[in-house]
Order: sequence, then C-alpha cells, then structure tokens
Amino acid sequence: LEKAMKGRQPADLMLRCTILDADGNVKTISGQFRKADLCAEHRLNPRDLRKIDSRIPNLVPTVLVRKEAILVNILHIRALVKADAVVLFDTYGSADSRLHSVFLYHLEHNLKGKANGLPYEFRALESVLLSVLSALEAEMVFIRNLVGGLLAELEDDIDHDRFKRLLHYSRRLASFQNRAKLVQEALEEVLEQDEDLAAMYLTDKMNGNPRKLSDHEDLEVLLESFHKQVEEIVNEAENIQSNVQSTQEIVELVLDSNRNALLALDLKISIMTMGVGIGTLVAGLFGMNLKSHIEDNPYAFALMSVCSIVMASAFSWVGLRRLARVRKVRLATNGRKNSPTLKDSLPLNLRGRGDGWSA
Amino acid sequence: LEKAMKGRQPADLMLRCTILDADGNVKTISGQFRKADLCAEHRLNPRDLRKIDSRIPNLVPTVLVRKEAILVNILHIRALVKADAVVLFDTYGSADSRLHSVFLYHLEHNLKGKANGLPYEFRALESVLLSVLSALEAEMVFIRNLVGGLLAELEDDIDHDRFKRLLHYSRRLASFQNRAKLVQEALEEVLEQDEDLAAMYLTDKMNGNPRKLSDHEDLEVLLESFHKQVEEIVNEAENIQSNVQSTQEIVELVLDSNRNALLALDLKISIMTMGVGIGTLVAGLFGMNLKSHIEDNPYAFALMSVCSIVMASAFSWVGLRRLARVRKVRLATNGRKNSPTLKDSLPLNLRGRGDGWSA
Amino acid sequence: LEKAMKGRQPADLMLRCTILDADGNVKTISGQFRKADLCAEHRLNPRDLRKIDSRIPNLVPTVLVRKEAILVNILHIRALVKADAVVLFDTYGSADSRLHSVFLYHLEHNLKGKANGLPYEFRALESVLLSVLSALEAEMVFIRNLVGGLLAELEDDIDHDRFKRLLHYSRRLASFQNRAKLVQEALEEVLEQDEDLAAMYLTDKMNGNPRKLSDHEDLEVLLESFHKQVEEIVNEAENIQSNVQSTQEIVELVLDSNRNALLALDLKISIMTMGVGIGTLVAGLFGMNLKSHIEDNPYAFALMSVCSIVMASAFSWVGLRRLARVRKVRLATNGRKNSPTLKDSLPLNLRGRGDGWSA
Amino acid sequence: LEKAMKGRQPADLMLRCTILDADGNVKTISGQFRKADLCAEHRLNPRDLRKIDSRIPNLVPTVLVRKEAILVNILHIRALVKADAVVLFDTYGSADSRLHSVFLYHLEHNLKGKANGLPYEFRALESVLLSVLSALEAEMVFIRNLVGGLLAELEDDIDHDRFKRLLHYSRRLASFQNRAKLVQEALEEVLEQDEDLAAMYLTDKMNGNPRKLSDHEDLEVLLESFHKQVEEIVNEAENIQSNVQSTQEIVELVLDSNRNALLALDLKISIMTMGVGIGTLVAGLFGMNLKSHIEDNPYAFALMSVCSIVMASAFSWVGLRRLARVRKVRLATNGRKNSPTLKDSLPLNLRGRGDGWSA
Amino acid sequence: LEKAMKGRQPADLMLRCTILDADGNVKTISGQFRKADLCAEHRLNPRDLRKIDSRIPNLVPTVLVRKEAILVNILHIRALVKADAVVLFDTYGSADSRLHSVFLYHLEHNLKGKANGLPYEFRALESVLLSVLSALEAEMVFIRNLVGGLLAELEDDIDHDRFKRLLHYSRRLASFQNRAKLVQEALEEVLEQDEDLAAMYLTDKMNGNPRKLSDHEDLEVLLESFHKQVEEIVNEAENIQSNVQSTQEIVELVLDSNRNALLALDLKISIMTMGVGIGTLVAGLFGMNLKSHIEDNPYAFALMSVCSIVMASAFSWVGLRRLARVRKVRLATNGRKNSPTLKDSLPLNLRGRGDGWSA
Repeated sequence: LEKAMKGRQPADLMLRCTILDADGNVKTISGQFRKADLCAEHRLNPRDLRKIDSRIPNLVPTVLVRKEAILVNILHIRALVKADAVVLFDTYGSADSRLHSVFLYHLEHNLKGKANGLPYEFRALESVLLSVLSALEAEMVFIRNLVGGLLAELEDDIDHDRFKRLLHYSRRLASFQNRAKLVQEALEEVLEQDEDLAAMYLTDKMNGNPRKLSDHEDLEVLLESFHKQVEEIVNEAENIQSNVQSTQEIVELVLDSNRNALLALDLKISIMTMGVGIGTLVAGLFGMNLKSHIEDNPYAFALMSVCSIVMASAFSWVGLRRLARVRKVRLATNGRKNSPTLKDSLPLNLRGRGDGWSA
Repeated sequence: LEKAMKGRQPADLMLRCTILDADGNVKTISGQFRKADLCAEHRLNPRDLRKIDSRIPNLVPTVLVRKEAILVNILHIRALVKADAVVLFDTYGSADSRLHSVFLYHLEHNLKGKANGLPYEFRALESVLLSVLSALEAEMVFIRNLVGGLLAELEDDIDHDRFKRLLHYSRRLASFQNRAKLVQEALEEVLEQDEDLAAMYLTDKMNGNPRKLSDHEDLEVLLESFHKQVEEIVNEAENIQSNVQSTQEIVELVLDSNRNALLALDLKISIMTMGVGIGTLVAGLFGMNLKSHIEDNPYAFALMSVCSIVMASAFSWVGLRRLARVRKVRLATNGRKNSPTLKDSLPLNLRGRGDGWSA
Repeated sequence: LEKAMKGRQPADLMLRCTILDADGNVKTISGQFRKADLCAEHRLNPRDLRKIDSRIPNLVPTVLVRKEAILVNILHIRALVKADAVVLFDTYGSADSRLHSVFLYHLEHNLKGKANGLPYEFRALESVLLSVLSALEAEMVFIRNLVGGLLAELEDDIDHDRFKRLLHYSRRLASFQNRAKLVQEALEEVLEQDEDLAAMYLTDKMNGNPRKLSDHEDLEVLLESFHKQVEEIVNEAENIQSNVQSTQEIVELVLDSNRNALLALDLKISIMTMGVGIGTLVAGLFGMNLKSHIEDNPYAFALMSVCSIVMASAFSWVGLRRLARVRKVRLATNGRKNSPTLKDSLPLNLRGRGDGWSA
Repeated sequence: LEKAMKGRQPADLMLRCTILDADGNVKTISGQFRKADLCAEHRLNPRDLRKIDSRIPNLVPTVLVRKEAILVNILHIRALVKADAVVLFDTYGSADSRLHSVFLYHLEHNLKGKANGLPYEFRALESVLLSVLSALEAEMVFIRNLVGGLLAELEDDIDHDRFKRLLHYSRRLASFQNRAKLVQEALEEVLEQDEDLAAMYLTDKMNGNPRKLSDHEDLEVLLESFHKQVEEIVNEAENIQSNVQSTQEIVELVLDSNRNALLALDLKISIMTMGVGIGTLVAGLFGMNLKSHIEDNPYAFALMSVCSIVMASAFSWVGLRRLARVRKVRLATNGRKNSPTLKDSLPLNLRGRGDGWSA
Repeated sequence: LEKAMKGRQPADLMLRCTILDADGNVKTISGQFRKADLCAEHRLNPRDLRKIDSRIPNLVPTVLVRKEAILVNILHIRALVKADAVVLFDTYGSADSRLHSVFLYHLEHNLKGKANGLPYEFRALESVLLSVLSALEAEMVFIRNLVGGLLAELEDDIDHDRFKRLLHYSRRLASFQNRAKLVQEALEEVLEQDEDLAAMYLTDKMNGNPRKLSDHEDLEVLLESFHKQVEEIVNEAENIQSNVQSTQEIVELVLDSNRNALLALDLKISIMTMGVGIGTLVAGLFGMNLKSHIEDNPYAFALMSVCSIVMASAFSWVGLRRLARVRKVRLATNGRKNSPTLKDSLPLNLRGRGDGWSA
C-alpha cells in the first residue's frame, strides 16, 4: 500500500518520445527527456504528464486542453500537440509496431501537406484520430469475423468447444465495446465544452488572436465527423453483442429441447426394457425347478413363449402411448373455453394494435 | 491497415446520381459526376460527400444542413436537397428497385404539385421521409407477420426447427429495431437544433431573407409528424421484441416442466422394471440347479409364482408412492405456521397495496 | 408499397362524430362530416385530422394544441375540444360501447355544471382524462386479478397449463404497461411546454385576452393530478411485472431442484435394480445346465439364495451411500480454511455495512 | 365502471383527524370533520384532500405546498402542516399502532421544544420525516435479516422450501425497494423546486415577510439530510437485491452441476447394470434346456461363471472409461494451438489492462 | 422503534479525533472531544457532525462544504478540513490500521511541504483523496486477482466448490462496485456545484477575499484528476463484473451441453441393456421347463445362442441409429428451401451491414 501511495508521487524520470517540428519532419526518434524539462518547456503541470506516462496503464482516454498544447491520450496514442510541434510519447511495447509506423508516416505527410486548409494542430489531431479510428475499425472487423465465423459454426453443430471459444470472444467483445465507448465519450466531452474547443485553436492563440467561445465550426465539424464514425463502430459492436446474446439464448432452448428429445427416446427404451423384463419374468417362472403341471403339454412351450412376448409387447405399448401423451408439448391451452369469456369480461376495448398477439 | 487509412483519403472518383430540376422533372438519370465538380457546384466539403458515397456503408443515418443544401442519408436514400434541385445518389444495388421507383415517382409528383403550400425543399424532404417511413413500416409489418406466425406455431408445438427460425427472426428484429431507433435519433437531433431548422429554409435563404432562429414552425410540424410515426414503429418493434422475450422465457419453463414430467414417467418405468427384476430374481433362485427341497410340492409353482409377482408389485407400489411424494411440486410452504408470526413481527404496517401479493 | 404511400395522402373522406355545444347538449350523434369541412370550420391542418382518423390505428397518444382547439387522442378517446364545442370522433367499433356512453354522460353533465370554476375547455378535458383514467384503472385491476390469481394457483401446483396462461397474461401486461407509460409521457410532454399550457386557455383566447406563458396554474394542477394517478397505475403495473418475473425465476429454481430430486430417486431405483440384477446373475449362473458340483448339497440352495440376496443388498448399499454423498448440495465450502486467510489479506477495512453478507 | 367514475367525485364525507395546536398540545384526538369544512378552514382545494383521504390507497408519496399549508402524504403519515397547527389524518387501521404513537409523542415533544431554532412548520416536518425514516429503516433491517438468514441457510442446504420463502422475500423486497425509491423521488421533487421550498416557510409567510426564491438554506439542509438517509436505505436495499440475484444465479449453476453429477452416477449404475445383464445373458444361454455339449465338462461351470463375470466387468470397464471422458468438463480448449495464432493476427495492441483476462 | 427514533437525537457524546495544526504537525492523537465543543469551535451544525460520527455506519460518502470547513466522509476517512487545521475522526476499528498510518504520514508530509503551490486545505484534501484512491485501487486489484484466479480455475475444471467461491466473490465485487460508484458520484456532485467549489477556497475566505463563483480552476483540475482515476477503477470493476457474467452464462451452456452428452451416453447404455435383455428373454424362454421339441437337436444350442445374440445386437443397432438422429443438434434449418423465398419477399433492401448475420 505504501508503495501504491508513493507510486503516485511525481518521480523525476525520463520519458522516451518522438518529436516532429513545424514542417512535419521528425526531429528526434525515441529520444529520452526528463519529465521536469518537458513540463517546463511546454508549460505543463506534472500531473498532466502522468496521464501520458505509459508505464501507468490508462483505460479511460482523455483529451486535455492546456495553455499552449493539447494532450491526447487515446488507446495506443499518447501525444502532445502544439502549434508548431508534435511530441509523440512511446507507449509500452508499441514503439516498433506496424500500426505506429503507419501512423507516423501519415502524420508526417499530413503535417507537410497543407492542402485542406486546416491549421497545423488540427492536421496533427486529424492524423491522431484517423489512426485511432483505423485501429478501432480494424479490431471491430477482426472481432466481427471471429464471432461471425463462430456463430455460423454453431449453426452447423452445437459443440462443447465452441462455447469455450464463444466465452473468449465474448470477453474480448465486451472489452472492445468498453474501449470504443470510452473513446466516444472522450470525444463527446470535448465537443460539449465550448471553452475547450475555442482553446484548441493553438495557432491562432500563438498569433495573438484567440478564438471567441462560439467560433469553432471547423474543429467541431472535424471532431463530429470522427465522433459519428466511432458511433458507427460502437453501434456495430452492440449489434454483434446482441447477436451473441440471442444466439446464446436460442442455443440454450435448443439444448433444452434436445434434452427432452433424448429423454423421450430414453423413456421408449426403458419402456421396452420393462416389457422385455416382464417377458423374462414369465419365462423365468417356468424355468423354476418346480412342478408347473404343464411340463408335458406339447404346446405349452409355444403358448408360454407367445404369452411372454405378448405381455412384453402389451406393457410396452401401454407405456409408449402414455409417453406420447406426456411428450406432446404445446403452448396453447387445449380447453379454450374460458378464453372467450376472458375477452368478454375485459371492461375496456383498449387493446388496439398492441394486442394483436393474444388473438 | 495502410489500406484502411488510405481508403479514408478523399479519392477523386465518380458518383452516379439522378437530378431533378426546380420543376420536378428528372434532368439526368444515373449520370456520372466527378466528386470534385459536385463539391464545387453545390459548395460542399469533400468530407460531406463521403457520407453520401454509397460504397462506404453507413449504418447511422444523418441529416446535415450546409450553406445551400440539405444532405440526407437515411436508410436507402442518399440525397442532396437544394432550393431548386434535388440530387439523388444511387445507393449500391438499389438503383432499379421497386422501392426506388415508387419514391422517384412520388418525389416528382410532389415537387410538381405545389398544393400544400410548402417550399420546394420541404416538399422534397417530405417525399424522402415518406419513403423512409414506408420502408420502415413495410419491414416492420413483414417482421411482425413472420414473428407473429412463428409464435403462433410455437403455441401449437414447441419444436426444434422453430427455435432456429426464432433465432433468425430475433436477429433480424434486433437489426430492424436498431435501424428504426437510429432514424428516430437522427430526426430528434435535427429537431433539437434551432439553427439547423432555421437554416433548412433554403428557398428563403436563396431569396435573401433567411429565417430567424425561432421561426420554423412549418418545418417543425412536418418533422415532428414523421418523428411521431417513426416512434410508433419503434414502439411496435419493442412490443414484438418483448413478446419474443416472454415467449422464450415461458417456452423454457414449459420445456423444464415437460422434462420433469418425462423424468417422472421414466421413474415409474424404472420402478416397475425394478419390481419385475425382483420377481425375476425370485424365479431365478428357484431356477438354480440346486435342491430347494420343495421341488416336489405340487403347489410350490403357483405359490412361488404368486409370491414373485406379489413382490414385484409390492416394490413397485412402494416406489410409486415415493415418487408421487417427490413429484408434487408446490410453491406454497406446507407448514405455514411461521408465516403468521412473520407477519406479526413486521414492525410497520407499511405494506399498503404493494403487498397484496404476499397475502 | 405504392398503396402504403398513397394511403398516406389526405383522402377526402367522411368522418363520423358526435358534437356537444357550448351548453353541454349533444347536437349531433355520429353525424357524418367531410374532412375538408371540418378542417375549414375548426381551422385545422389536414395532417392534424389524420391523427384523429380512427381507421389509422394509433398506439402513441397525443395532445395537440392548435389555434382554436385542443386535439386529444388518448386510448379510446379522440376528441376536438374548442372553447364552445366538443367534437367526439367515433373510434372504430367503440361507438356503442358502455365505456363510451358513461363517458358521454359524464361529459355532458360536467359541461353543464359550472360548479368547480373551470372554463368550458378544461371541464371537457377533465372528463376526457377521467374516462382515460377509469379505463386504465379498470384494465389494471382486471390484469392484477388475473395475474394474482394465476400466481396464487402456481403456489399450489406448478403446472404446464398455467405457464401457457402466464405467457398470455405476461403479454397482456406488457402491452398494458406500454400503453399506460405512453399516456404518462403524453401528459408529461404537455406539462413541460409552457407555450402549450398557456395556449390551452381557449376561452380566454376567444375573449381576446390570451394567457401569459407563466400563468397557467389551474391547468397545471389539473393535469398534474391526472399525471400522478397515471403514475400510480404505471407503478402498480411494474409491481405486477416484477412479481411475475420473480415468480418465474423461482419456479425455474423449484423445477430444477425438483428435477434433481427426481433424478436422485431414479438413481436409487437404478441402484436397487442393479443390485437385483447382480442377485439374478448369481442365480442365473447356478441355473446353467452345467455341473457346479454342489448340486447335491442340501444347504446349497439356501446358501446361494442368501448369498445372492446379500450381494444384491451390498451393491445397493454401496451405491446408495455414494448417491447420498453426491446428493448433498451445499453452497458453503466445506474447507473454510482459506476463508479467514482471505479476510486477513484484505488490504483495507473498507467493508462497512455493505459486506455484512460475506461474514 | 360507472361506480369508478363516480367514486372520483368529491363526496361530502367525514374525515377522522388528530389536531395539534401552536404549542404542540393535542387539541383533538381522532375527531370527525367534514371535508368541506376542512377545505374552507385551511383554504385547500377538494382535490388536495382526496390525496389525504385514507380510504383511497396511495402508493406514490407526495409533498404538496399550498397557500397556507403543507400537505404531506408519505407511507403511513398523512398530515397537514400549517404555521400554527398540525392536522394528522388517521390512516386506515393504523390509528392505534405503536408506530403512530411513537410518532405522535415525538411530534408533540418536538413542537414544544424550540431548541434547534427551526420554525414551527419545519419542526413538524422534521418529526414526520423522522418517523418515515425510522419506518423505512426498521423494515429494511427486518427484510435484511430475513433475507440474510435465508441466504445463509441456502449456503448450508439448497432446499425446495427455501426457494418458496425466497420468492416471498423477493416480492417483499421489491415492494419495499419500490416504496423507498418513491419516497426518495418525492423528496427530490421538493428539493428541485425553488418556489416550493420558499413557499414552505409558512411562519414567515404568516408574519407577512415571505422568503425570496433563493433563500431557503435551512430547509434545504434539513430535507437533504433526510434525502441522503433515504438514499442510504435505497442503496442498502439494492445491495440486498443484488445479493439475492447473484445467489439465485449461483444456486442454479450449483443445481445444474449437481444434476450432472447425479447423471454421471446414474450412468455408472446403468453401465454396471448392463455389464451384469450381459453376464446374465451368458448364464441364461447355458440355462437353456438345449444341448451345449459341455454339460459334462466338470470345469465348464467354473469357466462359464468366470467368463460371464469377466464379460460383465469388461463391458462395465469400457463404459466407465467412456463416461470419464464425457464427464471431464473444462472451459479451456485442449488444443491451444490456434490460440497464439489468434493473438498474433490481432492488428492492434490495444488491449491494455482490460484484456488481462484472455491471457 | 422508539430506540431507533431516539438514536437519532443529538446525544451529547464524545468523539475521538486526531488534530493536525497549520504546520502539518500532529497536535493531538485520538483525543476525546465533546461534540458540542467541536460544533461551537468549528461553527458546525450538530447535524453535520452526525455524518462524521463513526458509530453510525455510512455507506454513501459525502463532501460537505460549510462556512469555515470542509467535511469529508469517504470510505475509511472522516475528516474536517479547515484553512489552518485538519481534524481526523477515528473510524470504528481502523484507528491502528496500517492504511490509516500511511495516510497520516502522507498527510503530515504533504501539509508541511508547500512545493506544489496549493493552499493548505487543498493539500489536505489531496492526501485524503489519494488515500481513498489507494484504498479503492488496492481492493480492486485484490478482487481482480481473486476473481481472475477463480475464472482461470474454472477454465480448467468446472467444479461445484468453485461456484460457491464465485458467489462469494460476486457479492464482494458487487459491494465494491457500489462503493466505488458512490465515491465517484460524491466527487461529481461537488464538481457540479460552482458555489461549493468556490466556497472550498478556505484560505482565501479566511484572508477575506472569497473566490468568485467561476474562479476555481485549480481545485477543479485537482478533483477532476481524482474523478478520472476513480472512473478508471469503476470501469475496471465493471469489466470484471461483465467477465464474471459471461463466464457464468457460458458455464451454464457448457453444463447443459455436457448434460446432453451424458444423457446420450446413458441412452447408448440403455439401448444396449435392452438388447441384452431381449437376448436374455430368448434364452429364458428356452430355459423354461417346457417341451420346445428341439431339445435333442445338437445344433439348437448354437443356433439359439447366435439367434439370441443377433437379436440383442439388432435391437441395439436400431436404437443407436435412432439416437444418432436425435443427438445431432444443429441450429441451421436443414430444408433451406424457404429461406431464399423469404429473402425475396422482403419488401425493402434496407439491410445494409447490420444484416450480414443472416446471410
């Protein structure tokens, strides 16, 4: 516990980061910087940097607007966007990943090209959000294929092993859903606060003409567009989730119904076994070393054999008929006599369309 | 992944679209236009066009209000409504469908006739929303019939195959519910923003007298009317959903209860088999090639036969009585002795109507 | 589909309605009027009338405030309330119902008597809401009795047929709940909009002194009172619903537990059958026409008989003891050794009252 | 129905009530008053009195602020609080209860003592809310003990009868939860409306200096304190509810798992019975009165006996081994070969903490 | 009940508390103070002190802002923070705990060091919140390990005892979730009220320049940072919860599917037992002491033996084939003939992405 409390103290440690300058060129790759220097240089609070420190895992994504910088911490990206530089912090174990290099390539390209008329900081933000979006979408597609394939397999054969895979995919889906929703909420939070939106026009601020609170349409359109796309992904994830849910429910019903079928078959067998047992009992009685007084009747054997088999069949038949009656499962009540009375006694004719079911 | 990121870059591609002019006549059918030209002509942002590009599937419907146009993307319709023209974008695979031609016919007719006093852009919007509504309603009715039929069948016979169909219908219903709700939310979003509503009076804007923020009653009534109708459809879908849910629950109970009935019958058979087995054991003992010292007793056979059958019956009877006791399932506790005490010890007489159940 | 779209066009058809004049006398009973005339006379939009047209079923109730009239469409009542007249539209199939005539009688009476100081239109509204409330309450009481009776029966005997009735009642309850909630929401919607409330003072408007936006206390008290009562009904319906839910859950547990009891009994029988079978095997062996070399031992029969029965009993006993061990189902872990350790290792004493359970 | 509608008409009936004067002395005990007189004296609307009329059961508690009085109707208390008097209406069947007399004693005492500086009406309100709170807490403690005891019993033995009690407690808990939540909502409703709060300073109003809308801190602190305590109770009830829920779920799993154990034991017995049956078949074959040509072999008996028992054992052994394979239920997929591949193919390293599970 | 009501009266009792002065030094350790003195000294309402009185357990945490002090009551910490002193109230049984001493150490240190530029009261608050956070996190990690370990065990073997542990962990998790959410809500409540935030600048107030309502950024950043971290913990707890949930569901499916497998094996055994029984019947018939007229046929024995075994095998084979047909559980409907028709008859091509499942 003591450790936990101390672990929260600002420790004067190094952070590895990659820096892009105002022209979009990479100035430093994975360079080591002291936290205190970073704070001083970018006028940050040490508390802010902690959010970005990759050794502390963060599940909840954040977009923090500070005086001269925007701090972005979403999924795999932890970046500090300024009006003339972008600082990318290395996240644990992802420095060399393919996703990261695609992102870096796109960011460089986007910062260089000034085609779409957006200021430097928004182009950086666009690349960041695009990378987050691609990451989410890729994982969503991946999970959708996994789950879709598994559900299709379940249609063919309800199998033990498939449930185990379903469990794993379910967990993964839930975790993905959670992450996507948190990204959506983080975007919403920024979109809802006019001050933050206005404060994100860093270039204008640097040039000395900060935006008015209500004047941030470009940024709003940009963020809203990403927000919509994340919403689509969240929606899709919920679709998959509801598919998994309804499949589970139906599989349970199918297993239940199958169990009843197995039981019914079992019963048939039991019934016939009992019939056979009765036949055997009859045979056994005449197998006793006692005087049945028909030992010498030449037709006795045939008679008793037939009698024994007939008894076996008769008992089986009675049992099977009984089973057939139990087995017939219907939801509709057979004696519908009280049903009309029930309708008549309804005091109001309020049923309208909503009651088409009970008819 | 790289592809995914590039796939998001605005690609200079062609879009197929149908254009109606200010008089409601079709000017071009499925003509090809360059995206850049469309943007320039209608003063759109390339980002906006992407929403309409049919090759990117969109689940979440949107109504975007731009300077000179309203961009509508709901279900099968992707349209650009201006003060003097309507551009319909071909959605993938639906260009020749019957739904589309009915819509086109209605749109043309509605644009020509100026009977109901609405400006051009609202008449176009009305046709679009009407088509969306018909589509939703048609699908709702279709699903309701499917599900209603299936549930009725389930009332007759609880069957394996029906569960599988139930699963398919459930998924479809969930997907429909989702879509209907998203349409509802899109309409709500427009209705909630006064600026957007005012900005949708394109004709007035074109004539140089834009609406005030609060003056948009006609449009509000129009949209609210559609919103109410979509709400009805969503409500109906929820009704179907809750019907499916409660049917599933009851089917499970019925299957469970049926299983208990099967088990009870099985037990009866087992009990009788055991009885028969005991009889056979007795017979078997006397069938041993050993001296029972009653071999010569002329009544021994009858005696032992009767004895064996009586034992079989006795054991069966004991077993069956035991079964009857286990089988009796009641919810009410038999010994209600502590129940009144329980009531008395209740410190407060707070129960009122809400407790009528426990009585 | 074409039909569906056309079906939405305003068709110039007749509506049947009953009209009460300013003194509360019935002027016309079920008279036929042309829609267009009605619109012109009462200054309505044709779209508004469609809400009231009974041939289009409406699930979602609405209270629309127009320039000179209030349009009410709740459950079985579709009325147009003006400052000096009330127009009741015949709803499909309910023209001659008892509910309707009670309502008409009350309305007439209420319009004539000016005792409670409310203006004409509010007295009409009061009658309408009272009738709606009675209808809802009557149906609620009816359903509560149905469901309460069924649940009481289920306490006595868990039966197949009762589940089927439970399904029907469940559906009906869900449908009722839905309708009651929609009525509540419709009332809330009116209560939330100050303009609508002020605009409902039709008499004042007719006399040329419209109400200020904030001055509508009488009406608010009237509507709030009905709203509270509908809330009570909705609450009660939810109570019934939660009762049904918990009963279903417990019934499932009871069936499960009963099934285990049946299985255990089945096992006992199986075990004894096996024991008997072993006895029979022994007897069978000595029944073989082979030389056992003890054929002549005069005690062999008794010995083997006893031996056979002892073996049957021994195997049965072993089996039954095994069963008793499996059968004992407890939730508490027997070896509670690690439980205290678990407690001790809890880093914090944060448990307070919320943890009284695990103790 | 007619009766129902008439039942809502204000009937000129008597109400029994207890009145306390400005000094906290009881003036009248259970005196009879005419409704009309009460309305006139306290300047109430007849509609308001209906809320308080105990013959109409009210589930939803209300605190109504009128010109000269506060009408309180919460659980067992129906009171009219004025600046110089408190009128307690007798609720059905509770007039002589202990709870009521404790409340009356406390109220008297609180009204007399002016220690805590609150005006007369707030001291009355404090007593009312305190009594409500005690009542809720007492019932909560009672239910918690009931349920806690039952769940503890279920830990010892999962039993039929306990489920029935669980059902009764569940219903009671749900009903209690509902009531507590409604009390909480009623308090919230008052707290949210500044006008109501200001209007509740009756003494100030009577003295001619009504409070400003924003000046009601004393009352707010008083009500908020009770609101917090009711919130605690609601929270506790939810805790109990979630405990019941999770117990039910686990009990179901335990029953299921126990059923599998029973089935497995059943199978063992069946397998051995089958083995014994095969042995008996062999013995039976040699018991036939046919020539087996080994009748005279002196070792035939021992041989065939051993053979028969060996066959019985062999078949049993095969069956039991088969069973052991089916019986082994694991969630983990045995062939974990595709699991690593699955991980590698994940496009993004987005998993962070949330995925610690699948590892 | 009487006791309960009296227990709420302010009793003039002692409270034990530890006091830190303006320099962060501990002035008194666990000293006894009279409640009335405390109220007078710190200008508190007796009602406020009750929240802090540890003998009354509080589940719902609160942060109350008073004239000269902030009252904090979160989890294990009950403190009164002033501009120049901190009073820590001893909570029941935690006075000597390790958690408490770590907290005290940190608080002292934090109050002495003025490094981070925050005023005295915020440094105290920071320590309090930090301790709460560590406590929550420690418990979360503890529960996560417990549950994670158990779920991993369940993957290996679905066992009876594990369900019982699951129940205990589930309850604990629910209780923890509840507490964490309440802490989150308490923080949110403070953050939402501008007046409270401004009033918490006690030092400024003491120095005579109270903050404006909108000027409280430092405090907001401080509280928001803790709020985010509590949100992470709540989120994590929900993740664990959903993992437990989905595991339970899948375990149920696995148990169900396993039960079907057991039943199927049982059936195989039953079928073979029946086959054997039929063979035994045949043998038994020839074992009867009656004349079968083939007694002397030297091949009769072999013939009948073979015949008997063949019959046993034949019946078994028929049964097993029957079983195989019942056993095959698939979700897909075999006759997919009506499926395409179904698709064609869909009136609209509205399916888009959401329907990829039914394909």
